[in-house]
Formats: sequence, structure tokens, C-alpha cells
Amino acid sequence: MSSGVSTPVLTKPVDVAEYLFTRLHQIGIRSVHGLPGDFNLVALDYLPKAGLKWVGNCNELNAAYAADGYARVNGVAAVVTTFGVGELSAVNGLAGAYSEHVPVVHIVGCPSTVSQRSGLLLHHMLGNGDFNTFANMSASISCAVAKLNDPAHIAAQIDATLRECYLKSRPVYIMFPTDMVEKKVEGERLETPIDLAEPANDVEREDYVVNVLLKSLHAAQKPVVLVDACAIRHRVLDEVHDFIDKTGLPVFVTPMGKGAVNETHPSFGGVYAGTASAPAVKAMVEGSDLVISIGGMKSDFNTAGFSYRLSQLATVDLHSDSCTVRYSEYPGIRMKGVLRKLTAQLDVAQIKVLPPPKLDEVVDTKGDAGAVINQQWFWARIDRFLREGDIVVTETGTANFGIWETRFPAGVTALNQTLWGSIGWAVGACQGAALATQDESGREKARRTILFEGDGSFQLTAQEVSTMIRHRLDVILFVICNDGYTIERYIHGMDAGYNDVMPWRYRDLPAAFGGTEETAKSYAVHTRGELEALLADAEFNDRKGLRFVELYMPKEDAPKSLILTAEAGAKRNAMTE
Amino acid sequence: MSSGVSTPVLTKPVDVAEYLFTRLHQIGIRSVHGLPGDFNLVALDYLPKAGLKWVGNCNELNAAYAADGYARVNGVAAVVTTFGVGELSAVNGLAGAYSEHVPVVHIVGCPSTVSQRSGLLLHHMLGNGDFNTFANMSASISCAVAKLNDPAHIAAQIDATLRECYLKSRPVYIMFPTDMVEKKVEGERLETPIDLAEPANDVEREDYVVNVLLKSLHAAQKPVVLVDACAIRHRVLDEVHDFIDKTGLPVFVTPMGKGAVNETHPSFGGVYAGTASAPAVKAMVEGSDLVISIGGMKSDFNTAGFSYRLSQLATVDLHSDSCTVRYSEYPGIRMKGVLRKLTAQLDVAQIKVLPPPKLDEVVDTKGDAGAVINQQWFWARIDRFLREGDIVVTETGTANFGIWETRFPAGVTALNQTLWGSIGWAVGACQGAALATQDESGREKARRTILFEGDGSFQLTAQEVSTMIRHRLDVILFVICNDGYTIERYIHGMDAGYNDVMPWRYRDLPAAFGGTEETAKSYAVHTRGELEALLADAEFNDRKGLRFVELYMPKEDAPKSLILTAEAGAKRNAMTE
Repeated sequence: MSSGVSTPVLTKPVDVAEYLFTRLHQIGIRSVHGLPGDFNLVALDYLPKAGLKWVGNCNELNAAYAADGYARVNGVAAVVTTFGVGELSAVNGLAGAYSEHVPVVHIVGCPSTVSQRSGLLLHHMLGNGDFNTFANMSASISCAVAKLNDPAHIAAQIDATLRECYLKSRPVYIMFPTDMVEKKVEGERLETPIDLAEPANDVEREDYVVNVLLKSLHAAQKPVVLVDACAIRHRVLDEVHDFIDKTGLPVFVTPMGKGAVNETHPSFGGVYAGTASAPAVKAMVEGSDLVISIGGMKSDFNTAGFSYRLSQLATVDLHSDSCTVRYSEYPGIRMKGVLRKLTAQLDVAQIKVLPPPKLDEVVDTKGDAGAVINQQWFWARIDRFLREGDIVVTETGTANFGIWETRFPAGVTALNQTLWGSIGWAVGACQGAALATQDESGREKARRTILFEGDGSFQLTAQEVSTMIRHRLDVILFVICNDGYTIERYIHGMDAGYNDVMPWRYRDLPAAFGGTEETAKSYAVHTRGELEALLADAEFNDRKGLRFVELYMPKEDAPKSLILTAEAGAKRNAMTE
Repeated sequence: MSSGVSTPVLTKPVDVAEYLFTRLHQIGIRSVHGLPGDFNLVALDYLPKAGLKWVGNCNELNAAYAADGYARVNGVAAVVTTFGVGELSAVNGLAGAYSEHVPVVHIVGCPSTVSQRSGLLLHHMLGNGDFNTFANMSASISCAVAKLNDPAHIAAQIDATLRECYLKSRPVYIMFPTDMVEKKVEGERLETPIDLAEPANDVEREDYVVNVLLKSLHAAQKPVVLVDACAIRHRVLDEVHDFIDKTGLPVFVTPMGKGAVNETHPSFGGVYAGTASAPAVKAMVEGSDLVISIGGMKSDFNTAGFSYRLSQLATVDLHSDSCTVRYSEYPGIRMKGVLRKLTAQLDVAQIKVLPPPKLDEVVDTKGDAGAVINQQWFWARIDRFLREGDIVVTETGTANFGIWETRFPAGVTALNQTLWGSIGWAVGACQGAALATQDESGREKARRTILFEGDGSFQLTAQEVSTMIRHRLDVILFVICNDGYTIERYIHGMDAGYNDVMPWRYRDLPAAFGGTEETAKSYAVHTRGELEALLADAEFNDRKGLRFVELYMPKEDAPKSLILTAEAGAKRNAMTE
């Protein structure tokens, strides 16, 4: 043995690949994204036995994006790549998952431990004999790294790494040498599932925090709740809803928190994003004497350019790894336990509940059918097309900001990548999201997945439409055709050539990517009337598979929230003091 | 000043962006690849003033591949991305350039030094306040990293970094904060070009090595020359040809060295790749008592699975940074000076010159016109389609191995990524290569660029066809339609589903990507007769722009050299001792 230690006799020996994939299945994964490569091929043979489906993406970046989208709907995902070339292509997608707290297991098939020890100059290498360079690069975008080099430790390494991925809700990196695939490990361990329960808070410290919170809550005159992305990612939505239901407090979401709260709930007040909020929303949140912020991620794009006007003196921040009440910090105290206890112990009679702001009026759709579809009109209109349970994916760009204006039906899951903001992400993420719901409910009962994509962004990852068709996913894809990178135009270079893109015949792509009459259909809408007709069309609504819509909007039109955020960004870029 | 030092008065102040781009132009770059992003937009405004064209790729990985291809033809290239999302998408492309010694300047627009100091949570960040994470990741695939944070040092940093890029023939990473773009630096420096001359060897040590070499060369009974990739990348082809012309020694190339030597030269002996060589080639090279290897890169795929049978006792290795004669090593002695002196001092009368092996016979094309196009027939046939001066790009896969069998006309430049082997590379590289020749000679006189691409590989980077069309590049693109990843099938999983890809209607893509009757035309050939007719067709040969050919070949057919290399790889993957 390479470890130099004697091996214990295995009660139920299983191959490493079988062990790893069985564990993936146990934690809820049904499809594995990625591409084949010479260093992972033998491992891929084990997928079917573990009940896992192979996706087979068009490239590794798209595969990572897709795994990200799958994890946001399913809870966790896996992507398999090959050493060097494959894994490095996926790095940006995994960095996004790290940034936005999405649990993705990245498994990298790599040269055998024998090749590694001999220092051979293999393909996919830098020529320096170092087999750890790529793992080191991924270490800074992973919450754990495991190198499966010794069968004596592999089973424990896998269990610990998957647990870390789930609990930290961030990517992990598993380096899987070809000669370890068929090595034997203890299969008896598989009879005990990996413990994914969040560790409880220290009781005394938790009680202390809850007490401080209760006092503040009971004393506050105008308390509000603000729900952000980490409430979704760290799985406290049940606790959030219980808290809202019991207190009746007005609840707002940030842009990245959209979908966390049932927007038809009587307590729902709208989207808060600093200066880009509706005036009544801004007044209520910023006028509150106790903002209970749950799972906050205060990035520039999530706050309309850092335009929050909240006093820390009136703020409670609940996080997955700490809580803060005004200026008192409680590191290591997790929000889940705190929220549960808070809800259990609060005295409803002592809570002052103000009514949430009134919703904006429904947009008039009876106007000029020949009018162009502008951003303001579209995002307020599209709400009535959405159905309960839809998955709505928005791309970085006009869609990500426009959707702030769209009121969701109950049970909508919203996917956006507002913090990391990598354009092209949404096409891959949409594939993953649509597959996750299909894996969960079957092809007939899967939720609809609706993607709002910009044309410039679409060009980065367009070929993943082929994967949607290949797996017969139920996707409605709107490509916003507005001649290029509109979000960049508003930051700098409104008419600059570098913000233009090649004009494609977008609607011809599904067929070129292998779509048939049955699996994919294209549409184009230029006016409000055409859009209304399409949205009312029974065939469009009822058919399955891919519905691919060219949606024409004016080039220099953008949601107001985008314009405000872009202005703040341009100023910050130029700032010299 | 942030540096705390007083600034000298500038004689001819120029903005940093103008300085940087003027330097790029001076070292021979005419087009800059990349994508716009909020942290690089203002800098992009400076491109036209410096005489640089903006390419505007579809995504950053493709842009990096394209810059790689541009550099292989032009000598050096640049790619501009944005912080985080953009640069990380490009990482695999730059790792390939690092691995294969291709000089690419990677310029990353990043947040302002003010934002960096304040630790703001901006978009495109990991949420940890660390603005250096991505630069650290790129450091291991760059031969130099420059962070342009202080105007007092920027001009010198730029000059030193570009010099390093060119001399080491590897990527450099330049981190360019938004607030530095318009800062002033000394423009007078621009009147003196950056010194790109290779430093001379120490004369005494160089003389010593040349003497040792001369003795070996004059004594050898069956000397041969073997030219590999680094002879191309480190710019010693003139020296190689002078040496061959003066000695008349038989000369061979490795797969990665193809194109380095005029294959119509009377001394040219063919491609040497261990067991995958033609028998006469193998016999002559392995029977030689002095193999003068120039710029060797002995990776698995470049040696048909490490199947060289050369004795170090009969080998001279000349490299860009060292020379080795049998077992004597001479670190720091560069091949360029050694080759020049060797050629000048050798005594032709003392050199024993054997005739090179006879070329294989020309393949019979008069056979069955209805026969399928198999790999063996195709690669021997296509030579007569090639013209003097063509640029031939082959993708990792069947094409990269098949081309070993194709005898080139004079002046052909061959591009392949045999060491790094990232599938999809060739589509981007082809765009860059075609643009480089167009930049050099104008649209009318540009060399033809011919790409042989596999269908599986094509799917990774297909959209860059759009960039070829956008810039009206003169490209002939053969997509080998053989239903998936054939190279992987030969390593493992001949019939495995994971080696299949979605069947696309490839020929419809150029039009969907914006091609018109004038700029792009598609063709499909299924039989030898159809291929012969196409290759003889005047319209196909004479038209400009993109000619996109679906080339059907059997799924389970591969060049013999690929089969041998794949078998060796599969064995190595499984090896446990």
C-alpha cells in the first residue's frame, strides 16, 4: 500500500467510483453535469449503477453554470470535468457558485497517482511536472478540496467533503485519479447517510441573542423584515415564513432575495433596493426603526449601487454563520436556530404591525398594439403570464433589473446571479434548473422554466440550448433582441462599437442545434400586440419542450433600476479619491 | 500621491491606456481580442487612437483561444477581459498558451485602486474583500504579473512585462484598475521601442558547447535533425533552415513541429512520432547515432504515447533556455546563438549525409467515387488541396493525428495544440490566425486559413464562427461529422453514451450566426466523389469569406497514430504500479 499502513479487511467492498456516485445520489442528486475527458471516462461508466443520469454538456463553463442552476432548484449538484483543460474551463462557473453560496460538487478526473509520482509530461499539463497547480487554483473558489490518492482515506474524505459542500453551501473540489476509480473502499458506510443536519448553536449563546432580539422586536414601533439571497441558499425559508405568518410583519425582498417570499402573501411589501425601490417601499424600509435583515448580501448590484439608507442602529443582520444586532456581533451563531426560537418565543400582542405599501397598479395592456415593447411595460406586464410554481431565470443585464418590477405568483423560484454577474450564466443555469424539476417530478409534471436572456449574453453560451433540446426540457426562452450589451452601454460607451454584437438569426438556432418540430419551436415578437397574442396562444402555452422567443426591444432602453445602478458604477470606476 | 514619493515632471504626458496600447502596436499587434466589461470599457476607447482594431469575441475562452492563434501567426497577441468573470473564463485558453509557449498579453480591467482599498463588495467578487485572488490564480499560468497600481511605475512595468512575454514566449497578466486608465505617464519613452532582442549567450560557454557539438557532428556516421514546437515558438526557424541548407542533413519534424520545415525540401524526411511513424522514418531516426533535437516538447501525444526509442547517448537537445549534449547539460545556453555559430563553423566535408526516407506514394483518387471518406484516405488526399502559404489548423482529435500523414506545400504554417489538448481550441485559434494574416496582408492578399475540426470539439466553441463572419475572414472550415468524441472512444467507451453528442445541423449555423450569401457558404460531402468535386470546384476555391464544409466520416474510424496513442494512454490511466 502506498500509505505504508496495513489495510483493514473490508466488510462490503465497493469501488471508489460507486461509493462516490452512491453518495451523490443519497444527498439528492439525480443528474450529473459535465463533459467526458480521458481522465474521467472509466468513472463515468459507474453513473447508471448509482441511479445517476449523465447530462453531457456542450462545454465545461456551461456545465458549471448548469450545475449551479440545478443546485439552486434541487439543493445540490455535481459537475464532472477532466484534468487541466476541462476543470479550468469550468472555473468561472464555480467561482460564481462560490460567490453566491451555491453547493456544487466539482469532480475532476486526473492522471493516475503513478503518473503523478513519475512526473511524466502528459497532455493537459503546463510542462512543469506539477500535478497540483490546478487544484491550487481551485482552492480559492472551493470551501473544501479533497485529493483521493489513498484508498484508506477516500471514503471518509468523500463523506466529509460532501457534508462541507452542503452545509457551507459552496463548491468543493474533488481530484479523482484514474487508478483510484476501481480501488475498493468500505461499502458498509453507505448504509448510514451522511449527516447533513446543521450543527445546533450553543444553547446559552443562542438564548442570549434571542433575548436581545425579542426585546428589540417588542420595543420597535415600525419593524420590517428584509429577506436576501442567503436565506434561500442556507435553507431558512420555512423559518422565515413561520416568522412572517406569526407576526404579520411587512416583509420585503432584495433583488437577490426575490422568490424567497410568497409575493401574494398579505404581508409582502415589494423589492427593496435603495434608491431604485418604489417610493413607498423606500419610505417604509428606510423609515423603520428595526430592519430584520435575513441572509443579507450587500453587493453593489443588489443594492442599486450601495444606495441603502439604513442605519446600523436600526438593523438586525441574521446570517448563516453569525448574527449582528445593531453593533453587537455574535460570531458563530447561526440564523436558523435563532429564527426558530424567536418565532416560538415572541409575543404577538407586543408587536406593532404596519400595513405593507400598496402594490403598483397593473399596467394597461389595452393600449396601442403596434407599440414597441419597452422595458418598463414588459416587466410589469409579464407577471400575468407567470404561473404558480414557475422557475424564472434572469440574465445579468436588463432582465436582472427588469424583473424587480414583476410581481410573482406564489411558489415561483427565481434564479439570478446578481453578485457574481457573469453574462451567459443564465442559459446554462436554465438548463440545470429545468433538468432539476424534471428529475424531481418527471417530464409531464415538471415545473415550467422561463428564461429572460439578453442577446449579447446569449452569444456566450448559446450552444447549451442544444442540451435543453437533447433532454427534452420544458423551457420558455425569451431572447431580448436589443443589439448588444445594453447594461455596458449605460455604464460607458452608449454608441461604442465594442458594445455591439454580431446580429444573429436567433430563431434559427434551435433547429440548427438539433431541434425538431416536436422538441423546439421558435417565435418572434416585435410589438405589444404580437406579444399579447403569443402569451394568449393556447398552443404556445400548452406545448412542451423548448419555446424560443425573439423578443425585440429598443437598443437604448433599460429599466430605471439598471440606469441608476450603472451610473453609480461608472462613478465608482472613475473615482480617484 | 499614493506612493508617497514626489512625481517627476513629465516631458510628454500620455494616458496610461494610450501608453499600453501604443506599446502593443509597436511590438506588432494590430487587433486586440476580448469582450467588453464594465471594468475595461473606458480603456477600450483608446484602441483606435493606437491603431488597434477591436475584435469583440463571443466569449472569453474563445477570445483567449483566438489570441493564441493570432500569436502563433503574428508573433504576439493581446486579449482584454474584465475582472473575475471575464478573466476566469479565459483561464483555460491562457493555460494552453503557457503550456505551449505562446506569447499572449492578458489585460484585465479591474476595480479602481480606491475601491480596492475600501474593500467594497462589488459584483464579480467572491465576497471575501480580496481583490488579488484572481491575479494569484493567473500567476501560475503567466511568466509575469503586473499590477498597474501606481503611475510612477506603470510605464516601466508595461515595458518589462511585454518584453518578458515576447522573450519567454508565454502569457503575461496585466491588472489594469479603472482609475489608472487616464493617469499620465511619460510618453517620451515611446520613442524608444522595447528591446525584444534575445540576450546573447556568454561567449566562452557558448563556444565550449559549439565545440562539443562540432566534434559530435563531424564524427557522427548517421546524423539526423529533429525539429519540434519550441523551434517555432522561440523563433529559430531561420537558423534551422540555414543549418539544413548548409549540411544537407535529413530533417524530421515531430507532430507539434509540423510546418517548421519546408516539406518540399530535398532533405525533408517526414514526421517522427515513435511507434506511430512510417517504418522508414522510424528506422532512420532511431538508427541514427546523432539526433539533433531542436526545441523538443516530449509530451505523450507528441510522441505517440512516449514511444520514442532514442538513446540519450545519441541525442543533442537544443532548447530556448538550455542545451544538452548526450548527458552533458548546459543550463542558460540558448539554442539560437548555438545554432548560428554551429552553422558558421561546421565543415561540410566532414559531415556524413544519408538520403532521407522516400515519401509515401500519392493516394489513388481514381477509386470508387461512392466510397465513404475514411481517415486514412482523407489525410493523404488533402495535401493536393493545400496551397503554398496556407495556414492549417487542426483540432485535438482525429484531425490532429490525421494531419501527420499530410505532406505540406512550402510555406504552410501549421497550428495544433497537441500538448495542452483542449478541445474547442481550434475554432478560436482559427479565427485568430485568419485575422492575423488579414492584418498583415489585407483582406485581398491574406493567406487562406483552413481548419479541420471535429464535431464534438466544434460544439464547445461553435459561436466563434460568428466572429469569423463578422470580420469577413477567409476561412475554409471542415467539420468532421463522425458523431461525437472519437478520440475518447479509442481511449475508453467506444459505444458509451457519454461519448455521443447532440446531432446538430452544422451547415445551418453560419447563416444563423449572421452569415449572408456573400460572407458565408455551406457545403456537405459524404463520399470521396463529392469531396473530389468540391475540391475541384472553382467557385469553392476562388470565393472569399467563410466556406463551411460538413465532412462525413465513419464514427469508429480514426488515424492509426491516434489509435496507438490512445491505447498507450488508456494503459497508463489504469496502471497501478
